[in-house]
Amino acid sequence: MKLPLQGVMVLEFSQYLAGPYAGLRLSDLGARVIKIERPNTGDACRALATKNQWADGDSVLFHTINRGKESFTADLKQPEGVLAVRKLIARADIVTHNFRPGIMEKIGFDYESVKDIKPDIVYGEVSGYGHVGPWKHKPGQDLLAQSLSGLMWMSNNADAPPTPFGIAVADMLCGTHLAQGLLAALVRKKRQGQGGKVSVSLLESILDFQFEGLTAFLNSGDLPERSVKHNAHPYMAAPYGIYDTADGAIAISMGSLEQLCQAIGCAGLEQYYDKRAMFTHRDFIKAHLSLHFRVHPTAYWQKQLSDHGYWHAPVLDYNSLTHQDAFRVLNMVQKLDQGRPVSLYTTRCPIRFNRKARFNSQLAPVLGAHTHTLSEEFGL
Amino acid sequence: MKLPLQGVMVLEFSQYLAGPYAGLRLSDLGARVIKIERPNTGDACRALATKNQWADGDSVLFHTINRGKESFTADLKQPEGVLAVRKLIARADIVTHNFRPGIMEKIGFDYESVKDIKPDIVYGEVSGYGHVGPWKHKPGQDLLAQSLSGLMWMSNNADAPPTPFGIAVADMLCGTHLAQGLLAALVRKKRQGQGGKVSVSLLESILDFQFEGLTAFLNSGDLPERSVKHNAHPYMAAPYGIYDTADGAIAISMGSLEQLCQAIGCAGLEQYYDKRAMFTHRDFIKAHLSLHFRVHPTAYWQKQLSDHGYWHAPVLDYNSLTHQDAFRVLNMVQKLDQGRPVSLYTTRCPIRFNRKARFNSQLAPVLGAHTHTLSEEFGL
Repeated sequence: MKLPLQGVMVLEFSQYLAGPYAGLRLSDLGARVIKIERPNTGDACRALATKNQWADGDSVLFHTINRGKESFTADLKQPEGVLAVRKLIARADIVTHNFRPGIMEKIGFDYESVKDIKPDIVYGEVSGYGHVGPWKHKPGQDLLAQSLSGLMWMSNNADAPPTPFGIAVADMLCGTHLAQGLLAALVRKKRQGQGGKVSVSLLESILDFQFEGLTAFLNSGDLPERSVKHNAHPYMAAPYGIYDTADGAIAISMGSLEQLCQAIGCAGLEQYYDKRAMFTHRDFIKAHLSLHFRVHPTAYWQKQLSDHGYWHAPVLDYNSLTHQDAFRVLNMVQKLDQGRPVSLYTTRCPIRFNRKARFNSQLAPVLGAHTHTLSEEFGL
Repeated sequence: MKLPLQGVMVLEFSQYLAGPYAGLRLSDLGARVIKIERPNTGDACRALATKNQWADGDSVLFHTINRGKESFTADLKQPEGVLAVRKLIARADIVTHNFRPGIMEKIGFDYESVKDIKPDIVYGEVSGYGHVGPWKHKPGQDLLAQSLSGLMWMSNNADAPPTPFGIAVADMLCGTHLAQGLLAALVRKKRQGQGGKVSVSLLESILDFQFEGLTAFLNSGDLPERSVKHNAHPYMAAPYGIYDTADGAIAISMGSLEQLCQAIGCAGLEQYYDKRAMFTHRDFIKAHLSLHFRVHPTAYWQKQLSDHGYWHAPVLDYNSLTHQDAFRVLNMVQKLDQGRPVSLYTTRCPIRFNRKARFNSQLAPVLGAHTHTLSEEFGL
């Protein structure tokens, strides 16, 4: 069976993470994604390495985000470069970019100009903070978007300073929203023949991510309050949280405090068994449980909690996770070993079709690797 | 112009967060989303309140996730209920559920059965950990998925215990992946006439979210290491992080340490100005900067950093954020005031079409509110 996006052609002017992450998903789902890059340097992510890891001259991070794509180099300050890209646009279904507001206008590839070339184009743009207002020229960088968004009061304990999420969460979510918007626009194009412009921003995406907390705040005026210890979600009652054990840590999900105390043989919390007390006295309850969980190793608690049907999980690191049978059977790891004289391991697309995992084993392209073949194919 | 998914009909058997979050986005983008709920109780999220906030008998959280949807109640243990739902399926484009593996088979609405009713149906299923292996019956709950996924070593400082993300990040990402998969399948349906089954799981989604760290680990064997203080991303060099100021906190993005030190007038770090030292000595550099930033208020540092073009942002909470002009011009807040005798504020869809914000002002439906009208409309 064909991949769902087979036959869809995407031109990606996007760089770094948010825009290319949308392109990665479209590629995983079967689209043909062509990166439009400037000569000599290309996507700046090529030179951005995690743990100083490189593969065939590009960063492993770049390969992670750009597997399965093609690369076309064009100097958009030269008329020949502009002409070639205009011809590619005439054949494309989707164009994406994440330049700062104004740049695409300057080089003549803003939505209106692109629509003149290809009337039913689906055009996706990523910004940091939208296209109006005092922040529109602020650098669209993940940590800055997190800081401005109010997200810092969600993780960590109440006495800790504001704590960021240790992953580029705004970039990742914004990329997923871009992919959603592009796909929805593609559905409309197939039904009604019209294209359109899809706009997402780091800030709007990270605000949507906080819809639970923001909705609570907008209707009550109360800021989120983290619990003193074992905070795992500022709006959840005890016992919800992570607890140290004698040899590791264990996650305790929501449930009946009475049932939990029976499962782990913990006395002294009887007066807090009702739902209201579980929230208002959560700090005391968590402190009490904390002393209790420390006494035995994780496996001991897993047995007790399983016997009583209380929801829990051990806290795993990458090492213990990747040695689990449950991880292995998911087939979440794939080897990229095509298209370049190196190979590396990475994760695969998290979406399955007809329950089959989708592997996309092509490494990211060498800068400009497809300029010649694309020129021939499209008569550029 | 029509919304992109106008004319698309979705039946949502999903409950709680991950599945309904996909339905919310489809509804925001114009689809007609009908919740199939059991009589008397319905989606269990109706009774799950954040901050004990309620609106017209349902939790505000339920309204947040289910705005704009319809509700159809059916007892799927009774033949009449099954028959009515079969008739609805015959008219639907998409069906979603997040029951544990086996339940939909038991009630006769697994993919094969639904496909017999509607051959080109797009069928979406959410699980905790996939459909094979030792974890397939484990409860699919956000904190448990986070714990098993290795994510706990990303946020917070090196000396802190494993720290969860204080938001239901696995649920949210899994919902966005479900929406992506459903939309991609819909594109294929429009092009090739065939439906298909889309499967996502909390664990696969949260592993994809960590593709940077997991790829680094898979190729090096090294676990992520958080910096001792001011951790904001385990793979980033100093100065990347959040620093306390005299009256708040400030986010310092990546950039040249030399340029930063000049901007803030900080001496003593000259020997660490090269890129390699900025990573290997990040703990020392951050500790040094920390002492420096404490001396002046945030506004003072903002001025210095802006004058020197160094990327930074103040750390805002919901209160300070929502008073910013930059926030107000985004129009990210909407009032839900239609369909029920109450109103409340929430965020809106983060995706814009033709730069226009999309508002969806219908409150979540009363349980079964549309059973009668849907019965008439579809002759159930």
